[in-house]
Amino acid sequence: MMGFVFHGAGQSAWGEVPDPGLKDPTDVIVRVDAVTICGTDLHILKGDVPEVPSGTVLGHEAVGEVVETGSDVRSVRPGDRVLVSCITACGRCRFCKEGAYGQCQGGGGWILGHLIDGTQAEYARVPHADLSVHPLPGALESQDAVLLADIFPTAYEVGVTNGGVRPGDTVVVVGAGPIGLAAILTARLYSPERIIAVDLADSRLEAARRLGADAVVPVRDEPEQLVADLTDGLGADVVIEAVGVPESFEMCTRMVRPGGRVANVGVHGKPATLHLEDLWIKNVTITTGLVDTSSTPTLLRMAASGRVPTAPLVTHTFPLDQMEEAYEVFAHAGDTGALKVVLGGQRHDELAVPAA
Amino acid sequence: MMGFVFHGAGQSAWGEVPDPGLKDPTDVIVRVDAVTICGTDLHILKGDVPEVPSGTVLGHEAVGEVVETGSDVRSVRPGDRVLVSCITACGRCRFCKEGAYGQCQGGGGWILGHLIDGTQAEYARVPHADLSVHPLPGALESQDAVLLADIFPTAYEVGVTNGGVRPGDTVVVVGAGPIGLAAILTARLYSPERIIAVDLADSRLEAARRLGADAVVPVRDEPEQLVADLTDGLGADVVIEAVGVPESFEMCTRMVRPGGRVANVGVHGKPATLHLEDLWIKNVTITTGLVDTSSTPTLLRMAASGRVPTAPLVTHTFPLDQMEEAYEVFAHAGDTGALKVVLGGQRHDELAVPAA
Repeated sequence: MMGFVFHGAGQSAWGEVPDPGLKDPTDVIVRVDAVTICGTDLHILKGDVPEVPSGTVLGHEAVGEVVETGSDVRSVRPGDRVLVSCITACGRCRFCKEGAYGQCQGGGGWILGHLIDGTQAEYARVPHADLSVHPLPGALESQDAVLLADIFPTAYEVGVTNGGVRPGDTVVVVGAGPIGLAAILTARLYSPERIIAVDLADSRLEAARRLGADAVVPVRDEPEQLVADLTDGLGADVVIEAVGVPESFEMCTRMVRPGGRVANVGVHGKPATLHLEDLWIKNVTITTGLVDTSSTPTLLRMAASGRVPTAPLVTHTFPLDQMEEAYEVFAHAGDTGALKVVLGGQRHDELAVPAA
Repeated sequence: MMGFVFHGAGQSAWGEVPDPGLKDPTDVIVRVDAVTICGTDLHILKGDVPEVPSGTVLGHEAVGEVVETGSDVRSVRPGDRVLVSCITACGRCRFCKEGAYGQCQGGGGWILGHLIDGTQAEYARVPHADLSVHPLPGALESQDAVLLADIFPTAYEVGVTNGGVRPGDTVVVVGAGPIGLAAILTARLYSPERIIAVDLADSRLEAARRLGADAVVPVRDEPEQLVADLTDGLGADVVIEAVGVPESFEMCTRMVRPGGRVANVGVHGKPATLHLEDLWIKNVTITTGLVDTSSTPTLLRMAASGRVPTAPLVTHTFPLDQMEEAYEVFAHAGDTGALKVVLGGQRHDELAVPAA
């Protein structure tokens, strides 16, 4: 089969790889219909994730059809259309039993396209299938559903739920990339008073406004002052970090009100400074997290009924074999206006939202 | 009357000051029976809390008798024996309405011995008395009760409650000074599997063991390794920071398990480094806070019934007019073995626990 393979930092290619086969009785093999590219994949390509072995097929998000099942698999059968979650869950370890699948100690967690071959290929082996793939509602197109493999549960669980968004809250989302936009879309489910989006790029702020931000402010225009002005000088109830650099995290801790929450979603490569000399007295809560995807069944239902629209985040689509071109477009989002890039699926010749 | 007055950094003295009088109809005047000295008072003396005006009577913890009440005070009368809370609460602002009295925006919060004259004197004026003093159960001696003005609710709310201690948890308390010891005593109420105390000083670790720590480890003996060994390499469920220096906070973030909580209680003067490059994926929750004292009525009941013993923390007692001597003993705790130093009260010639 064909797949997108990491050959060490700076080297990757769409090429021939062996077909995956069942290894364990809890595995399934999925014929991939639609996949997407994650910012984490770009980090791997740069060499920032050194534990990824050379020769690994990348990708941890997919929609496809089950073509083969191990003897212990009970919840899906060949022919079923499924979402492949970015998180694999053994279901048996202490963390899985608590629903903390992202921290699975039984050989799961984030392993696809990381520690084992992933989904950016024609076929993929998914271990622990009963907890790691989700049957898809028929109403949901593959290109829309694939965003529920990672970015929507991540934004919802690690941003909105950890952030404890409540009705009437002022919510600031720092970073209006795909995760930040998904955080805006899912924060709205809790009826906040206002959502303020902060980003460097006007094009992303425009997308944020289209998707439901009540106010947008570029970093150059002193977002901290705007937040203070809108909140009687107190700060926001919830601030969601969706960038992953120290400057952004530190800005979040300056924008939160006494008693408020900072939910970090960004993937960080460097430490940040935590100004405890100001924060110790402020009753703030700071959370971090890898997604558990425990919300995925609910999000799938809400996406199918239209309550959680995912399509507006897809700016570019490609056939599966144009993986290298898709990576180029996604890696240069500043020029291409790319939010999410989807490969395969039923609608690869359409654009859900024209690129900026 | 006589009181202990801050005259600018490095200067303070027990001396004559004007008697306090009622200023607002919600005030009471309390004749002080017992007071204690807080680590924060030492910070003020050093000049670390620049907003304290020269001429301020220090102290934010007391037990005494109400001698005069403003016309709007409803819940106490002259002759009542009360605990003066370290937190003054207007009861009317948004934060007070949410029980977040420490963040009171209506002229309260931590103001005694900070922004207005405090309790280290023969008499004290307490504003917003209905929410800021607590009638004392008769069974509780003044010297025991005065520790409920600050350190017990602080350790319990900001450490144990924010830390979310649950039955079966492994709890690490970093810093076995008075706050850390009170955290150990109140964490036990939740039946954790084990409490591990960490400190630099063997004498404090000995106190920790006496008060219920299941294991104690000096910083020189690699506490992180001990915690890992006791938790299958995962880390502690809850880590309580009760020191207030960057090194200690950073150690806490290294000892917490995936999905665990770090509750910062320490008062910090400097920023810490937050290793988000490790923590972003670990689902940790970090909390900070000034105490609200919303738990004080409950803690008073539990202290009166013996469920929360406070006396073991009192190592030294003095008559009220030996304030300067008491400060000396408390400021040199490393040499004197002082935990809490109490002035006044009924038992000032006894030691609850002999000094180390």
